[in-house]
Amino acid sequence: MPHIAPFVTEVDFASGELSMADYVIQRRLSDMASMYADEAAARRIMAEEGDRLIYEVQGVELPAEEGQIPHCTTRITPGRIGDEYHMTKGHYHARREQGEVYFGLSGRGCLVMQTESGETSVQEMVAGSAAYVPPFWAHRTINLGEEDFVFFSIWEARAGHDYGAIERDGFRVLVVMRDGQPAMVDNPKYG
Amino acid sequence: MPHIAPFVTEVDFASGELSMADYVIQRRLSDMASMYADEAAARRIMAEEGDRLIYEVQGVELPAEEGQIPHCTTRITPGRIGDEYHMTKGHYHARREQGEVYFGLSGRGCLVMQTESGETSVQEMVAGSAAYVPPFWAHRTINLGEEDFVFFSIWEARAGHDYGAIERDGFRVLVVMRDGQPAMVDNPKYG
Repeated sequence: MPHIAPFVTEVDFASGELSMADYVIQRRLSDMASMYADEAAARRIMAEEGDRLIYEVQGVELPAEEGQIPHCTTRITPGRIGDEYHMTKGHYHARREQGEVYFGLSGRGCLVMQTESGETSVQEMVAGSAAYVPPFWAHRTINLGEEDFVFFSIWEARAGHDYGAIERDGFRVLVVMRDGQPAMVDNPKYG
Repeated sequence: MPHIAPFVTEVDFASGELSMADYVIQRRLSDMASMYADEAAARRIMAEEGDRLIYEVQGVELPAEEGQIPHCTTRITPGRIGDEYHMTKGHYHARREQGEVYFGLSGRGCLVMQTESGETSVQEMVAGSAAYVPPFWAHRTINLGEEDFVFFSIWEARAGHDYGAIERDGFRVLVVMRDGQPAMVDNPKYG
């Protein structure tokens, strides 16, 4: 195991900016247009306003080895694609038995989770919410507010990402705006 | 592996209080009087003012199994024992190869770390500091301010605590007040 020296990264609660990010990943609408229920709305937005930033991840890199604890921030911009709120792609961990902790820093949103055996859970998050994604639960975060929704994530280094199942099937539930409020609806494309 | 359902705990940044704590641990001066360099000062304080609260930990309980990610808050009260600032006991992980993340919520302090092979590191922490305790580093936190120092900790469930080496030998450095400011000095009792 390589020897890692201690370090501290300063996190800005409002922007999710890290003082020393090893990587910054931006996901734009074109990266995930087909993941929204209303793909036509996604195409229309891209034609009319360009390629909207949906979310940005800033993190520190650590060896993908047992016992290392990587961490990152995610900032999801406010907005909707059709009536569906801005969201992350969402994923299972490649090693399904690995959990994760999400800690809310600013704004408000929710965490949509599901298992391969058919369970679904939706948990609201604000600043100070410590949300637990247990082993075996796929997870996606969604911005329900009018400002950026920012949170801090912590996991064990070997968890890995498995985007495939979610890219193909989506999540069982969508979170959409109904009469100005968030509402859960079944995903007509699921499965 | 037992099936754990998702949950969210609300964390108060100023007090470290969890909305649903599975456990609350209080460490008072009598629990760690011999860990301070000036043990006579500790005895004097206990005789004069009673058994002072040094720190409190509130956390959620998860099975001690691979992939579970337990988390807790720690609130260290402000004050000194002799000229040494209030601090946690500090420990190595029983499984030395397990790291940990500390995230500052309020107040200010520092994180003192050391390895068994002779390295020492002291990192300052304020609200928003994401401090990485890499595998193999013992860690102790210290309140350097005049208010509570509160942070959030996240680790993998099998890490475990090994207090023995630190209780016996202490840390190589102490953090003490000199001319009203924090200063690092060698621990005369070390080793």
